[in-house]
Amino acid sequence: MPRYRLTVEYDGTPYVGWQRQATGRSVQSALEEAVKGFSGEEVTIRGAGRTDSGVHALGQVTHFDLGREWSAFTLLNAINAHLRIARDSIAVTEVVPVDDDFDARFSALKRHYLYRIINRRAHLAVDHMRAWWVPRPLDHEAMHAAAQRLVGRHDFTTFRSAQCQANSPVRTLDWLDVTRTGEVIEIRASAQSFLHNQIRSFAGTLKLAGEGKMSADDVAAALQARDRSACGTVAPPEGLYFLRVDYP
Amino acid sequence: MPRYRLTVEYDGTPYVGWQRQATGRSVQSALEEAVKGFSGEEVTIRGAGRTDSGVHALGQVTHFDLGREWSAFTLLNAINAHLRIARDSIAVTEVVPVDDDFDARFSALKRHYLYRIINRRAHLAVDHMRAWWVPRPLDHEAMHAAAQRLVGRHDFTTFRSAQCQANSPVRTLDWLDVTRTGEVIEIRASAQSFLHNQIRSFAGTLKLAGEGKMSADDVAAALQARDRSACGTVAPPEGLYFLRVDYP
Repeated sequence: MPRYRLTVEYDGTPYVGWQRQATGRSVQSALEEAVKGFSGEEVTIRGAGRTDSGVHALGQVTHFDLGREWSAFTLLNAINAHLRIARDSIAVTEVVPVDDDFDARFSALKRHYLYRIINRRAHLAVDHMRAWWVPRPLDHEAMHAAAQRLVGRHDFTTFRSAQCQANSPVRTLDWLDVTRTGEVIEIRASAQSFLHNQIRSFAGTLKLAGEGKMSADDVAAALQARDRSACGTVAPPEGLYFLRVDYP
Repeated sequence: MPRYRLTVEYDGTPYVGWQRQATGRSVQSALEEAVKGFSGEEVTIRGAGRTDSGVHALGQVTHFDLGREWSAFTLLNAINAHLRIARDSIAVTEVVPVDDDFDARFSALKRHYLYRIINRRAHLAVDHMRAWWVPRPLDHEAMHAAAQRLVGRHDFTTFRSAQCQANSPVRTLDWLDVTRTGEVIEIRASAQSFLHNQIRSFAGTLKLAGEGKMSADDVAAALQARDRSACGTVAPPEGLYFLRVDYP
């Protein structure tokens, strides 16, 4: 059966998250309905990463199989036409035919995420539900310094949701950079894979470092503790963007 | 009476525009209600520019008078608190006490606007209602070259809405730059003042230049024609952002 890789952008605000659920509309089911809408085929679309409700994606990568062959151009236009009819805030930005051993999740070499904070006194208007609003001044250099203590191969139990289904809490974090441009603070994280809520847990803890409530040593100690209660408050989903995935 | 200058950000999508109107909620009336909410005073808030329904602002500037004096800090927090209660997509980003000869509109030396186009095959998801989606490839260099023919002091009748209330169609356009970063094309326009729909008329005409349907000479001829029918389709409001205003 022909297999296709789809790159997908979405505003995660109205969805229960990436994964199909009984409790509401998911990005996955919206895409599956769009594929069924033009092809008549019931498909299962697999994503490179599960994003929570409210989390956005600029480059989620997915794959699925269809019974018959379509050109990439036709697929992109047909799926997007059905997404627009359904008024979904989802767009397919690229379609590529792939070999049937390609798997969006298991073939991934590296995943890249962005967490956006807007740090200013005034609440958000244009960026409402597109960033985390933090009104108190943050020291982004202190955040970056603390972040460097998390880079590398570690047991990330402290920064992992209680609901995380991964077998092991050990991951290799390739980088975690904090930069500031005006009132916008960007946290960029890359790893082969992440634990559930790992980046939002990082963002919540780094915010405490930016407020001077945790030193870089405190953040390192929180990691060492391997204890969920050592983590700062998990940052809200609206700041998180799934940027892209690298494949061989 | 103490006078205050307010810098205001808004997502223009849900409003009938800046100006108070009988047909729906305006940014101006939302702000006036917020001021009344904490001070009890009925005020009129004057803006540096009237934006149409759907047009956004990152730095609209306004002024108003209050019967009693408040600290800038208190005003900013109190107005923003009332805007949040009303669930308005408006935020006051700065408050400065000013002399009573300051007028947000008449004291303005220069106004700066941005028009954002996203030029790609896929429709917009994260940037829905935040940019103009143009699916066909645009040559931004051709757009920039054509734009230079509009810079300077001219009769801009071609690029002026039939509803424009200005006495004269003559304006001095200081610059009109077109740049591209990936799929995002930005048109930046600056002038002491603009005519109604002038920047959206520029954007619609420059899009034709980017598609190869008008040459730079054609754009210059359209300007020379001083004829509204020589203008391309007016670009939609969701791409336009009122960026900032310069004062003495």
